[in-house]
Amino acid sequence: MAAPLPPPPSGQFRDGVHLFPVRVYYDDTDAGGVVYHSNYLRWFEHARTEVLRLLGIVQSETADGMYAVADLAIRYAAPARLDDAVTIETRALELRAASVRMRQRALRDADLLADATVRIGFLGPGGRPRRQPADWRARFDAFSIKDTQ
Amino acid sequence: MAAPLPPPPSGQFRDGVHLFPVRVYYDDTDAGGVVYHSNYLRWFEHARTEVLRLLGIVQSETADGMYAVADLAIRYAAPARLDDAVTIETRALELRAASVRMRQRALRDADLLADATVRIGFLGPGGRPRRQPADWRARFDAFSIKDTQ
Amino acid sequence: MAAPLPPPPSGQFRDGVHLFPVRVYYDDTDAGGVVYHSNYLRWFEHARTEVLRLLGIVQSETADGMYAVADLAIRYAAPARLDDAVTIETRALELRAASVRMRQRALRDADLLADATVRIGFLGPGGRPRRQPADWRARFDAFSIKDTQ
Amino acid sequence: MAAPLPPPPSGQFRDGVHLFPVRVYYDDTDAGGVVYHSNYLRWFEHARTEVLRLLGIVQSETADGMYAVADLAIRYAAPARLDDAVTIETRALELRAASVRMRQRALRDADLLADATVRIGFLGPGGRPRRQPADWRARFDAFSIKDTQ
Repeated sequence: MAAPLPPPPSGQFRDGVHLFPVRVYYDDTDAGGVVYHSNYLRWFEHARTEVLRLLGIVQSETADGMYAVADLAIRYAAPARLDDAVTIETRALELRAASVRMRQRALRDADLLADATVRIGFLGPGGRPRRQPADWRARFDAFSIKDTQ
Repeated sequence: MAAPLPPPPSGQFRDGVHLFPVRVYYDDTDAGGVVYHSNYLRWFEHARTEVLRLLGIVQSETADGMYAVADLAIRYAAPARLDDAVTIETRALELRAASVRMRQRALRDADLLADATVRIGFLGPGGRPRRQPADWRARFDAFSIKDTQ
Repeated sequence: MAAPLPPPPSGQFRDGVHLFPVRVYYDDTDAGGVVYHSNYLRWFEHARTEVLRLLGIVQSETADGMYAVADLAIRYAAPARLDDAVTIETRALELRAASVRMRQRALRDADLLADATVRIGFLGPGGRPRRQPADWRARFDAFSIKDTQ
Repeated sequence: MAAPLPPPPSGQFRDGVHLFPVRVYYDDTDAGGVVYHSNYLRWFEHARTEVLRLLGIVQSETADGMYAVADLAIRYAAPARLDDAVTIETRALELRAASVRMRQRALRDADLLADATVRIGFLGPGGRPRRQPADWRARFDAFSIKDTQ
């Protein structure tokens, strides 16, 4: 019997940093020959989702609420191009009752492509800020502690 | 007092054909310098949504169900490029109890860019095919009758 | 003979502010029922492209270089939803030799949805920062002067 | 020293079928709670790009021309949802001088989600159909022969 196909990658934690691999496909690029600037935000969101998954937090299985981006700042350092293998680095910066702040960077080997700070808020079903579930917060906490080692 | 800003365009019916204007932006294009092939499907869906809006059918206001693409076939004739003004033509081809078949084309002036046949099914809240609301069906019918004149 | 179809909208200037109408379609939204956060960046880019078009700057017709986002910061105030008519406001904040800084906001009627500051750099064909064409700079200047009236 | 991060997945060939794993993220879904229909086309294109990569064909490194979708037909059988792990199956159906026809399916475990036939044409730099490079054709041929075993 054939071995099952490996699942889509979730990346991995190394010294408190989550590393997530991304491939640049045609639809990520634009007629300027480089990755369209908003697609870095999609990659960052994918990486955050994989951080949650590795921490055991599956958003689609809770009715308590959901995380949403509250604000972000991003600096574009160099363009990614078709066929590039890009690594998304994610670090927890600050954990509060109803939000998490993270730093996320896109790199191609040692080259910095984009550098962002993202604040994620937890929202109840009605869309209002709400305390994160205690269990989820504890899991994030473990992630951020690793980051300071 | 300033006149209100004109709303986003809904296109217009002419002789039973709905015409909808689309502009090609950077994010529609890819590193090949042309519009990425799946984006024509987005434009076609936007045009169908505007057909529904002009017919008085607002999907987000009903709990009865929603339309979803059942199948489609598309032929790419010529590429659209950055800054092009593209017209999406939509015609009803066939109206059935639980589905509508439409022909949709993308044109730049007289040049055909893409030509598609799309079948849309009406689905109940559980995702199963369901008869379209009678009132909606009557509205589509009026649209398709115009098409044969 | 039928009147030609109105072209896709370019928006309009009012008191130094560019206003651009956007409709929320299904592909702009996500399973959370709201517009996915990176799509505001696409709308802002569309609006900037229309500002350039209205100022007579057609990027696809020059070989001198192109504008690219250097950095941006965005705060999400309230979510846009399916079928919403959204207005994108664009103001020039600062004009420098090789870059322009703009403020862009997304509004639904009087409700603020997102508020961003975006810095756009002009890049030569090799991707290095370069002075904007003098003529283009003059056109931006006229736009920013209007803004301070 | 840390082991290098595994690269983004390219999938694998099994009995002449290429299998490629995809994860459903928020931006793939829409307000209907399911994957937006045009995103299957993006996944199929990603899978075809990985087929080319595994066959040693790197499109971004040739000046001879590029592959572009000539036509496709797709049937949507069941919706993919947030967090699903989806497998894209790709088979070569027919190899001609200037085009390749493939069948591509999206599956979630044993459930068929979408089933497509896609014809890809090779285009010269001017956009006209052109014979595929002999070497590339031979590589596709090896792929299709495996398919009939």
